[in-house]
Formats: sequence, C-alpha cells, structure tokens
Amino acid sequence: MESLQPKTAKESLTLLSDIVMPGETNPLNSLFGGELLARMDRACSIAARRHSRSIVVTASVNHVAFVKPIPVGSVVTLEAKVTRTFNTSLEVFVDVWNEERKTGNKIKVSEGIYTFVAVDETGKPIVVPEIIPETDLEKERFEGALRRKQLSLVLSQRMHPQEANELKKLFD
Amino acid sequence: MESLQPKTAKESLTLLSDIVMPGETNPLNSLFGGELLARMDRACSIAARRHSRSIVVTASVNHVAFVKPIPVGSVVTLEAKVTRTFNTSLEVFVDVWNEERKTGNKIKVSEGIYTFVAVDETGKPIVVPEIIPETDLEKERFEGALRRKQLSLVLSQRMHPQEANELKKLFD
Amino acid sequence: MESLQPKTAKESLTLLSDIVMPGETNPLNSLFGGELLARMDRACSIAARRHSRSIVVTASVNHVAFVKPIPVGSVVTLEAKVTRTFNTSLEVFVDVWNEERKTGNKIKVSEGIYTFVAVDETGKPIVVPEIIPETDLEKERFEGALRRKQLSLVLSQRMHPQEANELKKLFD
Amino acid sequence: MESLQPKTAKESLTLLSDIVMPGETNPLNSLFGGELLARMDRACSIAARRHSRSIVVTASVNHVAFVKPIPVGSVVTLEAKVTRTFNTSLEVFVDVWNEERKTGNKIKVSEGIYTFVAVDETGKPIVVPEIIPETDLEKERFEGALRRKQLSLVLSQRMHPQEANELKKLFD
Amino acid sequence: MESLQPKTAKESLTLLSDIVMPGETNPLNSLFGGELLARMDRACSIAARRHSRSIVVTASVNHVAFVKPIPVGSVVTLEAKVTRTFNTSLEVFVDVWNEERKTGNKIKVSEGIYTFVAVDETGKPIVVPEIIPETDLEKERFEGALRRKQLSLVLSQRMHPQEANELKKLFD
Amino acid sequence: MESLQPKTAKESLTLLSDIVMPGETNPLNSLFGGELLARMDRACSIAARRHSRSIVVTASVNHVAFVKPIPVGSVVTLEAKVTRTFNTSLEVFVDVWNEERKTGNKIKVSEGIYTFVAVDETGKPIVVPEIIPETDLEKERFEGALRRKQLSLVLSQRMHPQEANELKKLFD
Repeated sequence: MESLQPKTAKESLTLLSDIVMPGETNPLNSLFGGELLARMDRACSIAARRHSRSIVVTASVNHVAFVKPIPVGSVVTLEAKVTRTFNTSLEVFVDVWNEERKTGNKIKVSEGIYTFVAVDETGKPIVVPEIIPETDLEKERFEGALRRKQLSLVLSQRMHPQEANELKKLFD
Repeated sequence: MESLQPKTAKESLTLLSDIVMPGETNPLNSLFGGELLARMDRACSIAARRHSRSIVVTASVNHVAFVKPIPVGSVVTLEAKVTRTFNTSLEVFVDVWNEERKTGNKIKVSEGIYTFVAVDETGKPIVVPEIIPETDLEKERFEGALRRKQLSLVLSQRMHPQEANELKKLFD
Repeated sequence: MESLQPKTAKESLTLLSDIVMPGETNPLNSLFGGELLARMDRACSIAARRHSRSIVVTASVNHVAFVKPIPVGSVVTLEAKVTRTFNTSLEVFVDVWNEERKTGNKIKVSEGIYTFVAVDETGKPIVVPEIIPETDLEKERFEGALRRKQLSLVLSQRMHPQEANELKKLFD
Repeated sequence: MESLQPKTAKESLTLLSDIVMPGETNPLNSLFGGELLARMDRACSIAARRHSRSIVVTASVNHVAFVKPIPVGSVVTLEAKVTRTFNTSLEVFVDVWNEERKTGNKIKVSEGIYTFVAVDETGKPIVVPEIIPETDLEKERFEGALRRKQLSLVLSQRMHPQEANELKKLFD
Repeated sequence: MESLQPKTAKESLTLLSDIVMPGETNPLNSLFGGELLARMDRACSIAARRHSRSIVVTASVNHVAFVKPIPVGSVVTLEAKVTRTFNTSLEVFVDVWNEERKTGNKIKVSEGIYTFVAVDETGKPIVVPEIIPETDLEKERFEGALRRKQLSLVLSQRMHPQEANELKKLFD
Repeated sequence: MESLQPKTAKESLTLLSDIVMPGETNPLNSLFGGELLARMDRACSIAARRHSRSIVVTASVNHVAFVKPIPVGSVVTLEAKVTRTFNTSLEVFVDVWNEERKTGNKIKVSEGIYTFVAVDETGKPIVVPEIIPETDLEKERFEGALRRKQLSLVLSQRMHPQEANELKKLFD
C-alpha cells in the first residue's frame, strides 16, 4: 500500500513544453482551445498521478481562463502542480506560458484548475497523501482550494450554501 | 450590422452526435476527457456563433463535470445552447448524453459551461442580442448565469465580494 | 430480441454540426474530402444503429457528390436518415449543409448514400425493422432505394440486368 | 501547357502500402471505414494528378465496397489507376489488398471508384489526356466507365434515361 | 517455420505515395519532420516484414537526412528496401522523393536508415533470410551495412574500436 | 542581433512529460516508434531554439535507439539539451524516461541525437552561441559531438576519412 506521508506540492511538478503546429490550430491560426484543454488534462493528470502514485480519473474542470491567443509556431509550456487534496480527490493547477523566441521571456497565456479522483485497480476511490505547500503561491492556492471545493458543491446542489463556511466568509 | 433583436435559447441549439473511436480513448478504454473537452468547445462555439452571427472566441471554461465514463463504441450526443448573454459575452451550456444501443435511452454523462466573447473581423468585442429563455431549464440556467458571472469575477479578484449582490443572496 | 415494428425515417435522424479546423483541410484550404467521407460514415452509421438498435457495419458507399468546397472555419451540419431497409441491410442518406455565419442560411454542399448491414454480437446478419417514410423527400428516396439496390447488384454482377425490374422501368 | 497526348493507364499507377494502427480502427478493432475512404481519396487523387499533371479536385465517390474487415496490424496496399477520362474529368479505380504476413499472399478487401475534375490555378476545369487501356482489366474498366458515367448523370437527374445509350444496352 | 532461403532486396520493396496535407505541416508550411520520420518507420517496417515474414520491431534509427523541405500539397513517395540482414536484425533504407506536378520529375528530398529486429509471437528474436543485392545501389548499400553496424556498436560502447575491422579499413 | 555569448547546456533544457494514449500506439499496444520520433523532434527543436533564440530546422537524425517498449498508459518524459554547436548547426541529445507509477522510479527507454540548423527569417543559416558543458555527462557528450560530426561527414562522403582526425583517434 502507498504511504500517506504528506508530500510537497513541488514533488508533483509536471512540465510539458511543446510547439504549436498548424494541425492544432483554430481558424484564427492560434492554438485551438479544445487542444489546449486536452493538453492541460494530460499535464494535470500526470501531476495528480505523481502525487498519489495511483490511477487517477478526471472528475471536473473547475475553471480555465484563455487569457491570450497562442499563435502557430509558439513554444508553449504547461506547468502543473497539485494544490490540495481532499481525502480521495486532488485539485491541480496548471499555468500556461508562451515563450518569446528572441528574448526567452515567458508570458502567461492561460490558467486552469482540474480535479481528479484517485482510484485503485477496481475503480474504487482511495485516500491520497496531503499536500505541503511551500511557496507563497502554493500557500495561496492551497488556502483557496477549500473555497473552490465548497463552491463546486453548492453549484451542483450537493451542499447547502449555509453550510459552506469558507465561502460565506468571503461575503461577511 | 447584425440586429440586436433578442432570440430564444432554442435558436442556438447545436447537436453533435458521434461515435467514440479507439483513437479517442484514454488508457481505460473510455473517451479521453481532453477529447470531450475539445468537442464541447466546438459544439458550444457553434451555439455562440449561431446566436451572435459573429466570430466568437473561447474566453473561459467555467465548469465541466465528468459524471460517468463513456466506453469506446458509445454514441455520444452533445447538446449546446446559449443560456445568457452579458453585453459582448455569451454563456453556453452543453449537456452530454450516452445513448444505449438496445433501448435508445439517453444517459447524462457530462455537463459543461463555457463562456465566449463575440468579436468583429478586427478582433474588437461586439455587443450581442439578449436571450429569451422559454423552458423551465432554460429559465433556471438563465437565472443562475448572473451568479456564475459574479463568482468568476470574485474568484479572479476583478469584483469585490461585497458588490456581488446575486451571489451574496445565496448565503443570506 | 429487438422488435421488428416498422419505424419512421425521422426516428433515425442524426445531426452532427462541427467546425472545419485547419488540421482537417486539403491543400486548397477546404475541408479534405476524405475527412468528410469519414464524418459521413460516422453520422450514417449512427442513423443505422438508431433504427436497428443493433451493431452495424458499413457495406458500401453508393454515391457521394462533392458539390461545393467547404472553406476552413465553416460550420458544417451533417443530417443522416435511414431511407429504406432490405431484410438485413439499411440504406442511409446524408445531406451536408454549410451554414453562413451572418445570415444563418444553410447551403447544400454535399450528399451521400451509404449501405450498412445489421449484425449480432457474433457478426451474423440480422433482420431489421422496415421504414415508414413520411415527408415527400423521404418517400422519393424510399422509392429510389430499390432501383439503387438493383443497380448495385447489376454492377457487381450479382444480378442479371433482365431481372432488375425496377431499374428496367427507367429505360422503357 | 500540358500535352494532351494519350497516356497508358499504367503511367498513373499509385501505390500506398501502410500498416493499420490502433488509432485508425473502429470499435471492432478493424480499420475504420472512414479512414479507408480518406486513404482511397488520397491515392486516387495522386493517380489523377499523375495522369493530368494538373490540380485535381474530388467530384464524387461513385462506389466503394467494403468486402472484408481489415484487422489492426494488417499491411494494406492501395493500388489506384485512372480508368478513363471524359474531357475534364477522370474516373479512378482503387483496389485494396490485405497482405498475409506469413505467406505474402494478397487478399482483396475493398474496391472503390472516384471521379476527379482537373482544374487550372484559377479553379477552371481543363481538358485532360485520354487513357490507353492495356491489360484486360484496364480495358474492361475503360468500357464500363461510360455506363457508370451515364448512370451517375441519370441518378442525379442531369440526363434522361432514354438518352443513356450505353446504359440502356444492358437492359435490352 | 519460415524458410531461410535468401531473397532479393527487390522482393521487400515498399512504396508509399501520399499527399502532404495542412494538418501534417510544421509552422513553415512544409511536411513536419516528425511526421516524415513516422511515415519512414511505417514504410521500413513493412519492407522488413515482407522480407522476414515475421513480426518486426524498430530497434534504431541509424540516420535520417532532411535534404529539402517538402511543401504542403506535395506528392511524396517513400521507397523502402531491406539492404542487409544480420542474423535476427534487418537494415532498411528508405529514399523519399517529391514529385513535380507539371513534369512528373522526382526530386530526392530525404533518406533514412532504420534497423529492425524480427521476433516470434512471444517476442523472442528469430533468424531471418539473407539478402541478395542485385543493382549497383543495392550492392553498395549491402557493403556499407557492416561498417554502419560496427559503427553503431562502437558508438554505443558495445564493441571496442580495435575490433571494428570493417570500420578501421576506412581510416588506414 | 542575438548575442553570441556562450551559454550552459542546462539553459536549453526542455522537458516534455506526457501520457501514452491508445491512439498513439502500435499494434503491440506500445507507443508507436514514429510517434516517439516526432515527439523527440519537437522536444529537441525547442532546446535548439532556446539556445539559439532563432528559427531552427531539423537537418538530420543522427541516431535513435529504442531500448524498451513503452506500454499504453505510461507517463513518458523527454529531456532534451543542446550538447554542442558547430558554427550554424546544433547537436541535441534527448533522453526518454518511463516513470513507474507506484514507485516514481524512472527507467531509460530511449535516446536520440538530432541536428538542427539555425536560420534567419529568410532561411539563411546564422551563427549560434557556443555551449558550456557543466556536468560529466554534458562534457562527455560535448567531447563526442565532434567525432559524431566527422562520422556523419565521412558517411555522406563530404569528408575524406583521412581528414577525420577525431574519429581516427578511436582506431589508433
């Protein structure tokens, strides 16, 4: 059985750098959004798998923002890390950067939040280790994860708004 | 110039029935989540285009729930409709059904909410017609759209929680 | 066992709306004909499956006309319906429309006729319900189906021209 | 300008051998029919281009028979040759063979007939050279081409059956 | 069991003609190198299979030169032939030609050398027949194969340079 | 103009972690070699671009060894780094690792060497900065690069063996 010893967020870090090819574009000659969503799913599921060392299945996409178009020929880097776990589920953030060829500068072009469930070989959910956030950003995302979870439960009517304590605090 | 006469939600209805082929599966032999996200993006953007009669670009994925796996060989139907518009942006819901071969019954397997921005040929956002919801479900989703918009603004820190009136009501 | 109660053509209606992406074009920047043939195959096989509620395999493409090129970025809608059945086989028509963005007008761009065979789990052909055509177009296509079937048999030398009664009538 | 000197059918011969990969299969683990239709389109258009030395566009699929399923891992060979030309159009036959690994024997698994139109850089149809059939099979297909052309015109109601002389002979 | 009777190189000849589609290009609108490498792998493995009549797995790519870019819309022909065998392994050469539309002239655009291992159903390497080179080019490549094999072994430190007799001759 | 200040090998490090999906496998249910070659090309070209800050085109694949099959569902990591530059060309090494799910151990499954040429917007080759190797492995690969270059020139008959000083040393 897998140890439930907490692990740092960094241990789940997953990097995926790739070039935007013409066959992956939309009619505006930028990376097709659906293709980016698919790559995010791949990168985030690897991060979730690295943290849990189990099979993981995508439960939901919580939010993806398309900030800037990503033109054909760009070098795009996805950077995924587990932000927090809740018993058998894992929240994963992915940041997407477009790297300028001439300067090497990286510009943030997209951001996504996915949730996975860890399962055993029979598909039964299994408990995963907790996360130890280290950097400021990791801590901020760790803190926000509970609010986002309650929000998701409220919106899908699996939690009554009055019980969503973390969320309520925002509005007090 | 395009008329801004409000239109019913139904006029934007977009249907996309397709078979899950082996080349579109994940290692568990079900439709790969990323591929479903891409198909949702395609179907929702057609609905947004049908309503606005303009070019549309994906601004965000607000939520996607993967309720049940969709095995290889399934006939999957995506049903997308615009739920509400906000000046230059459009919220689109997509329901995903898996159709049982022997009975023809449709089982809900996934659901997604995407936001698009309508733009002119130069990429400048343009105002789109309002939506007239007709069915109970269309009305419910129309009502919820404002809450979801405020939520999105609050979470991205572009709106102060105290100003999110619709959202606050949930917690009072 | 599946009922052999006849069904209307409309019950098999299958809609597939999708966008033409750059990765699906030919060197003239229109939808690649082979890609359209593949989508037609998918849409028609779903119509055949919906009618027969059995597994179906493509037996032949009887005719496909490419009337107009379909430029990248187009919204294309395939509309497939079973036209007639012959014991264990089904003829399916698919009409392909390109939807003008600004007006919403649909222009016919292609048309195809496919034949499927219904099989059980072991691959043995099984009898399928008959079709009840309702509209004028459904009736016209229902009537023509027998001629097309005889034609196909004559051309493949599995029927003597003198026995092709329906076909002979055309030339009398 | 391209010479209109007639050419043999053999000069247009196009061979395309490839392996059936899992990503190209249908849910029955055989080559997906739509994928085969696309490969046929590619092979036939090369044959048409080799004969005409011009740009060619697919006008129609006249017939495709799926005789046997083609299991994953098979080595499939497409063999396309122009059978006859009609002023600006070309009929192309493609035979599809599955090669047994242990014996090298080739089994016919499919056959297709496509029609192309030769065009200049502006898209205007241009006259192509005639075909000189040499083998018995080439001659038989050359003979049948006129019947198939009339048939196609009759079925699309661009020719009255009474004018289809070649076709009528079949039924006398 | 398969006969070990030597075969001519020509018996393994594999031809793969195909069109470069926009979905297969790099950001410079030429055939993406990775896509060409994949097609070479397919063509060479068929040649190796035809010679050995066994299952073959790619062991290494020994060299691929990209001589000229291959623009979108080109007709590309891969021509693969086994050059020599070493007990259980096969060296295969593939020449890649781009065919000018107007003249039919073929221009060499790339060249590759792959090595395969023949295996039985359990994955165990099996001995394959020897090659009989016939043309001058076949003989030249047959001669060079031993040098290339020693080179590969030296570079991967599985052979001491002093033992690489064929190779040493080059430098004496 | 880009500075020609030498850079460390590490600055060009490119990581690409991804999952092997069923649509990317060969008939033995492992990652298709051609697909791996394409991914290597993408990763290596990013490393070359990061070092040169210019457009790069693939000139050759110098060697790829497929050491172990990579089963469907594996998490594969490609790690590419520039090893040495020669005026306008760059040699890039890529190591491929398969990560065991339960232990997180990485097993080397493949290795490749690619050569790129840096070009300006008009396609003219341009000089690139030199590499500063730091680790033992980087130094070893830096040293070997000259031998591999001479080898490539000798094999393509663009250098006489007697002039290949580095190479000759191996056999003395």
